[in-house]
Amino acid sequence: MVMSLIIQKYGGSSVATTDHIRRVAMGVASSRVKGNKVAVVVSAMGGQTDQLLNLAAEITNHPPGREQDALVATGEQVCAALMAITLESLGHRAKSLMGLQLPLITDNVHTRARITEMQTENIEQVLNDDIIPVVAGFQGITEDGSISTLGRGGSDTTAVALAASLNADCCEIYSDVDGVYTADPNICPKARHIKKISYQEMLELAGLGAKVLHSRSVELAQKYQVPLVVKSSFGGERQTWIVNEEEVMENSVIKGVTLEKNVSKISLIRVPDRPGIAYQILSPLADAAINVDMIIQNASIEGYTDFTFTIPTSDLAKAKGLVEIVAAEIGAQEMLAANNIVKISAVGIGIKTNPGVAARMFRSLSSENINIEMISTSEYRISCVIEEKYGELAVRAVHKAFELDNIKQEEKEV
Amino acid sequence: MVMSLIIQKYGGSSVATTDHIRRVAMGVASSRVKGNKVAVVVSAMGGQTDQLLNLAAEITNHPPGREQDALVATGEQVCAALMAITLESLGHRAKSLMGLQLPLITDNVHTRARITEMQTENIEQVLNDDIIPVVAGFQGITEDGSISTLGRGGSDTTAVALAASLNADCCEIYSDVDGVYTADPNICPKARHIKKISYQEMLELAGLGAKVLHSRSVELAQKYQVPLVVKSSFGGERQTWIVNEEEVMENSVIKGVTLEKNVSKISLIRVPDRPGIAYQILSPLADAAINVDMIIQNASIEGYTDFTFTIPTSDLAKAKGLVEIVAAEIGAQEMLAANNIVKISAVGIGIKTNPGVAARMFRSLSSENINIEMISTSEYRISCVIEEKYGELAVRAVHKAFELDNIKQEEKEV
Repeated sequence: MVMSLIIQKYGGSSVATTDHIRRVAMGVASSRVKGNKVAVVVSAMGGQTDQLLNLAAEITNHPPGREQDALVATGEQVCAALMAITLESLGHRAKSLMGLQLPLITDNVHTRARITEMQTENIEQVLNDDIIPVVAGFQGITEDGSISTLGRGGSDTTAVALAASLNADCCEIYSDVDGVYTADPNICPKARHIKKISYQEMLELAGLGAKVLHSRSVELAQKYQVPLVVKSSFGGERQTWIVNEEEVMENSVIKGVTLEKNVSKISLIRVPDRPGIAYQILSPLADAAINVDMIIQNASIEGYTDFTFTIPTSDLAKAKGLVEIVAAEIGAQEMLAANNIVKISAVGIGIKTNPGVAARMFRSLSSENINIEMISTSEYRISCVIEEKYGELAVRAVHKAFELDNIKQEEKEV
Repeated sequence: MVMSLIIQKYGGSSVATTDHIRRVAMGVASSRVKGNKVAVVVSAMGGQTDQLLNLAAEITNHPPGREQDALVATGEQVCAALMAITLESLGHRAKSLMGLQLPLITDNVHTRARITEMQTENIEQVLNDDIIPVVAGFQGITEDGSISTLGRGGSDTTAVALAASLNADCCEIYSDVDGVYTADPNICPKARHIKKISYQEMLELAGLGAKVLHSRSVELAQKYQVPLVVKSSFGGERQTWIVNEEEVMENSVIKGVTLEKNVSKISLIRVPDRPGIAYQILSPLADAAINVDMIIQNASIEGYTDFTFTIPTSDLAKAKGLVEIVAAEIGAQEMLAANNIVKISAVGIGIKTNPGVAARMFRSLSSENINIEMISTSEYRISCVIEEKYGELAVRAVHKAFELDNIKQEEKEV
């Protein structure tokens, strides 16, 4: 029998209490009993990271990044130590490894650092000694020895980076869901579980706020060709594999429909239309690290145009302040802002090869009398901004239009 | 003005909440305003260490030391980061340094590691950059890169070791008390504050359970001649200096009276008296790391003797089990155990040069009709084991007998 190396990552809800940790530890143990080598990556116990951030918020709204990282990194450290203690108590040898014990080297952009190097000598030694390494996810160390963190969802990234560096056979991501669905089952009761999805489709879904996996971990998995699988830590047979496009033999054009609610728009009315105007409006937002998503500029009429873009609602107040200044500078007539909008997207690798997908989506919305305010498309995605109150109805309509309601698992997964 | 370097250590009750931390940070800031360089050492926020240990206890009663250390070390890490955040929010530059960032190297005896090397290059760099280093106390790193802890009271030890290595001008220990008293004021209302005490006296007091300072930190301070001062983090002028014997010009023979309650005794009755019997009885306890304190062996009568010793009450159950086995082996007639006893001690550098101190103590106890069950003495200390119910009365009697009730501060501190 060839021994496989599996990286297993457990999210916060999977390790929320010591009872949860015990259950997870038994799962790890059973993977080993099947003859695999296992390295475990853990997040902080559910709620811990927020508790730590709340402590900092009691002091200041702007903690220095270096110290915030040192603070929140303890969440994963606690969980890694408890997991190692639990595995040992079950009769397995285990050893916790923090970011700076691997070490996982990052740049020094605190609170959202990027991995520059994953050293594997220490963890390979632990694996060779037949000890289960329990890695504290999310955290690393900068070149100058400060503790850093990889930002939200960073433990997924740690797990995939580890899988890539160790050339693991696969990376299992355990959370409180058993995979990816064609839509949010809370919105669309006919949503169906997906068994296989391509990295690119998953990236689109993650980027749209599907919380199963963090975008950066999917990017990394695609880059290093790490087979990813999403499972529920509470058991059950269902799982979703995230693999190369070629491996997804799929007869539906659209893989899933998502609804993003954290969307607001800002419009500048009657902007004098001259070259560089878009840059002038948007660069202050870029400087403030506000992510502008969709942009529409109307055709110029008598030297004036209207300019509209969307941003995360969480950045709306800040953005309005910045854009008001620009509006005065460039002589726009008026600034309008709205947060009563949502973005509905259809995602699938079939889009690029199937003309008419967009038209089908627009028709399904129109047949429900839903007005489309903005549109954007990519190879794998069509997104429409609509009024918030129609959001859930729109998901069900598009889901049905692409016949996702009716697919049987057998048909869907060839 | 010559700039002084001061190490300030803040205990758990001084940093119990973010409000406490803010108050401490303002104290640190004011020390700097006076023109001193300051390095801060913090314990975990009050109660945190126990909370973390409770999590481990939910899993097992015997967590591996390495993982327990990784777990509890997060307490100090959280506090150091929060203190640095607070100092920064008050407009000072600050940087947290964990045990492995100093690094403070220890042996690999997890949960009660000893310092083998304190490297100071990093912290000196921080001090030279005019940044306040905030050191996580209690924690270090082993030669092989595991997180270690120095045992209870370890943050005091970190502070003193840092003061010694950096050749600091003094080491200030802040806690919820404003120094050392001639007796516990809760027991003896006439107890008085002590302004100066010698390392050796402080060691005896610490060893007897006075919780102001941990023995190891006092030993270390004496060894490296670090002037220690105990202050209240809640303000007030009072403080106790712990310095060399020569610097304590003191006209009272006895410096203080302490009562230790965590005392039990075990007696073996009618033990065949032959060479090596004491070793045979006590070595299983030494192997189990049970600290035997006082030992009495009666004169032999017809080849039999009685053998009595004291141990911490917390080890009584374990000790009884071990001694029962030995009792059977050596043919002792009976084993008796009691935990209704306490140890009262008088401590002072005057003892070795003043004959008759012991007699004075015994007389004061006898005049209250308190029976002395066991006696032990050292150069700096006379201890008597008595019945628990007389403990507090005995403290007041001895305190009075040595005229500690009447000393005015002016007389006492020359």
